[in-house]
Amino acid sequence: MDELSFIRSFLEENSPYALERFRSRQLLTVTHKRDANDLLTEVDLTLQRRAVEQIRARFPGDQILAEEGEFNRMPSNPLGRCWVMDPIDGTNNFVRGHYPIFGIALAFTEGGLAQAAGVSLPGSDTLLLARRDGGATCNGARARVSEVRDAGLARVDVDFSTRIDRRDILPRLGGLLEGAGQIRCHGSAVASICMIAMGEAEGYVHLGLNAWDYAAAQLIVEEAGGRATRLDGRPLQVFDGGRGVLISNGAVHAALLQLIA
Amino acid sequence: MDELSFIRSFLEENSPYALERFRSRQLLTVTHKRDANDLLTEVDLTLQRRAVEQIRARFPGDQILAEEGEFNRMPSNPLGRCWVMDPIDGTNNFVRGHYPIFGIALAFTEGGLAQAAGVSLPGSDTLLLARRDGGATCNGARARVSEVRDAGLARVDVDFSTRIDRRDILPRLGGLLEGAGQIRCHGSAVASICMIAMGEAEGYVHLGLNAWDYAAAQLIVEEAGGRATRLDGRPLQVFDGGRGVLISNGAVHAALLQLIA
Repeated sequence: MDELSFIRSFLEENSPYALERFRSRQLLTVTHKRDANDLLTEVDLTLQRRAVEQIRARFPGDQILAEEGEFNRMPSNPLGRCWVMDPIDGTNNFVRGHYPIFGIALAFTEGGLAQAAGVSLPGSDTLLLARRDGGATCNGARARVSEVRDAGLARVDVDFSTRIDRRDILPRLGGLLEGAGQIRCHGSAVASICMIAMGEAEGYVHLGLNAWDYAAAQLIVEEAGGRATRLDGRPLQVFDGGRGVLISNGAVHAALLQLIA
Repeated sequence: MDELSFIRSFLEENSPYALERFRSRQLLTVTHKRDANDLLTEVDLTLQRRAVEQIRARFPGDQILAEEGEFNRMPSNPLGRCWVMDPIDGTNNFVRGHYPIFGIALAFTEGGLAQAAGVSLPGSDTLLLARRDGGATCNGARARVSEVRDAGLARVDVDFSTRIDRRDILPRLGGLLEGAGQIRCHGSAVASICMIAMGEAEGYVHLGLNAWDYAAAQLIVEEAGGRATRLDGRPLQVFDGGRGVLISNGAVHAALLQLIA
């Protein structure tokens, strides 16, 4: 079984569990992390544990970077084989928020680049997959970014994240908040980035993102024809230690960079 | 048939049509209104036409205020019997955006106040109804706002609307964008206000809203225990000609007003 097949199987097998728990979310056990708004549920932990167990069984010796607990440290060999996971991206929405805007993200990296990636959006029964230089699919059909070229017509997701991250964001966002066609803030990086890959939005901005939040979605959007950079236009690399990201359909990228600068 | 029964029947009958058209939204005919981001589809027009026909047949002589076309003028007798409708609130999401975040809103007003109201959120199979002084329901069960009292833990929807409205908003939003627990921007007033009524969010702010955007949702959230005012804390009345609104679960209202001031 190659890495992409593993990713697909894992996401297909585990998405129904996540959706079922969302539907009965008033029964979830919820705890806090560094900030009272940074939530953690048993579903995050269960999905991460299942992935870790299966990766260790099928790909022994591979490194694992994942959001929760001891796994959230950069790999000691960033160019080696590594799996990058966010068990539930959009946990706050998963706990509250009515609409099922959350995703499960899993990427396989080698040479410091994602080589295979998958994102499941269980709330809309959507599975996106990508292989480096092999294109991206959405539920089996080719995924393509939109052709919108005008920032003034673009749907742009501005992710305000938790209050800790937000202090640095606000002074830089005035131009974008005024200039973009539609502003959204969905509260899930992977859902918003995948909307760009599906051609349903044009931009996504976040100043404090971690590798597990974008590694999978970045490959998917790039293979769908989009572009991902740091906020100053430098390339976005999975383990470069930077944190801000701008993701777009490509056609509006330069215009959005200019609005943020 | 009383007014609330009519509202319920209309929303129950027409929600499946709206959801079916959302699911095949790549086939929609989309036009623009005052701004290239202010969209109109045949679904907005069809739902409004159906409502107007049925209101005229069952409640002859009643006034009608609705978002589209000739119906978007204030009633000549604001204290008389009037129906207030937004056929699709969140049209941009209806046309693009992956998640079905839109609603159909219908209110009956008399004495300048909503007396009966309904909002359907077809994308989540959710119907909210309220009668003045009679409480609010969500799919038949009692709807209640949350008990969150701390703005720093509140989910607050900041609606950036279209670029025309946004110019006035930005200078007033810094405190709120920094101080609220979670920021969201879903792009549908009625969906976001109803999330407060369902206890899944605490606040909603918009500086340029029209009567059809909030008349129904306001009664629902108030009957669920929440509060609705202008941005300076004055009462929110359906036909008072003002435009900014702050809606909350009540417990965080004063704190949010202070962050906006």
